[in-house]
Amino acid sequence: MRKPLILVTNDDGITAPGVRTLIAVMQELGNVVVVAPDKPQSAMGHAITINSTLHLNKISAAGAEVTEYSCSGTPVDCVKMAVSEILKQKPDLCVSGINHGSNSSINVIYSGTMSAAVEAAIEGIPAIGFSLQDFDWNADFEPTKPFVKRIAMQVLQNGLPDGVLLNVNFPKRKFEDIKGIKVCRQAKAQWLEKFDKRTTPHGKDYYWLTGEFVNQDKGDDTDEWALDNGYISLVPVQFDLTAHHAMQQLNTWKLNE
Amino acid sequence: MRKPLILVTNDDGITAPGVRTLIAVMQELGNVVVVAPDKPQSAMGHAITINSTLHLNKISAAGAEVTEYSCSGTPVDCVKMAVSEILKQKPDLCVSGINHGSNSSINVIYSGTMSAAVEAAIEGIPAIGFSLQDFDWNADFEPTKPFVKRIAMQVLQNGLPDGVLLNVNFPKRKFEDIKGIKVCRQAKAQWLEKFDKRTTPHGKDYYWLTGEFVNQDKGDDTDEWALDNGYISLVPVQFDLTAHHAMQQLNTWKLNE
Repeated sequence: MRKPLILVTNDDGITAPGVRTLIAVMQELGNVVVVAPDKPQSAMGHAITINSTLHLNKISAAGAEVTEYSCSGTPVDCVKMAVSEILKQKPDLCVSGINHGSNSSINVIYSGTMSAAVEAAIEGIPAIGFSLQDFDWNADFEPTKPFVKRIAMQVLQNGLPDGVLLNVNFPKRKFEDIKGIKVCRQAKAQWLEKFDKRTTPHGKDYYWLTGEFVNQDKGDDTDEWALDNGYISLVPVQFDLTAHHAMQQLNTWKLNE
Repeated sequence: MRKPLILVTNDDGITAPGVRTLIAVMQELGNVVVVAPDKPQSAMGHAITINSTLHLNKISAAGAEVTEYSCSGTPVDCVKMAVSEILKQKPDLCVSGINHGSNSSINVIYSGTMSAAVEAAIEGIPAIGFSLQDFDWNADFEPTKPFVKRIAMQVLQNGLPDGVLLNVNFPKRKFEDIKGIKVCRQAKAQWLEKFDKRTTPHGKDYYWLTGEFVNQDKGDDTDEWALDNGYISLVPVQFDLTAHHAMQQLNTWKLNE
């Protein structure tokens, strides 16, 4: 049987421990090609590079069996370049991460990790974004490994519904304290931004974006609940953003009078 | 009666004719505050600036009645800075655009214009993104004006369902050739990327991202159909990305065995 072809990317940059973990697990499942940013690209959302040039560099960090390229662009650029310029065939799976920091609830919108997976899904590739609820560069990814493997195997075996990808988040827990995998919905939560206002040595104001995460959603079927209670959250994500439930109401508006 | 407070932003930059048109129309409806990027920020998706500083500059391009700031960040940064640092109260409406170029179908994902509107909606502000199917800097925005006003008035009067914003796209047509406003769903379409590979004077390869837009969706209820047939498309957009229809199927997977 042909080994599956697996595309790996992330948003923390190609040298991040999280993507190294993901590469190691994927090597157990198939032939691995890595195309990941040459520098951190967190919070890049679904940005693409249209007003400047893109560069690829072949590197070799995971050994001869893995083909690896660093890319000067965003996570979405990485997926586009991999599909168009590097891979000879459509991959069987695209995995993104493992992100240093969770991408649960509304973070799915800001996340470069998730946007790379969304891009793959738009291109018809089964895709999963993985994130760990720990921003530390030296976060412990070991406990995630068997679960990453199990979820990836399930996707390789079952495929995914058309137009759907997975957003998987791991709680920061030891392996034995993880309670299992829970299929969830995205919690209704948001960031309340706070700007740290400072003054340059030349007397001009400038700002750093900071923020406070606020979860208004008390449902026990959400990704936030799952993470808080020791579960791995698995949210099916779609890129058809149409709010179908709102169409009837809008059709009652006097739009053409 | 208190005049509504209207926040205006865009992604083509604060000097773009599209945002100037939007400001002019909004001045007929309320008190206008503009916070828009100081340079083009197309295709930035939902990117935010977390690894560098942000700057605001007060400018005066639309006259004394309008408060205007250019911002060094992305369209989403602009909304965050407006809400947190500039406005004394939550605006009654946030409008983004009018974008030079359409943001129909899958473009909603890549678009800075739409991401600014999404950010406003996340923050609980009724929000509309407007785009014209014409990339030209000198595109004719005149025909859009009465429709922009009508849609904005409807949103000010009716509000929007919780978690829903509007994606409005105008066909490139003369006023008398526009057939009306049509409530639509997002067409299933995508960009087939093509990279233009070139070589630097120093012998190194580099790439420009280009692409071809492919619409596989033949439905007459889509935004693409509306635009092709002379209608203004109005798509209700949500930022709960959960693919609720896929949850049952995923729950049949052997995720915890």
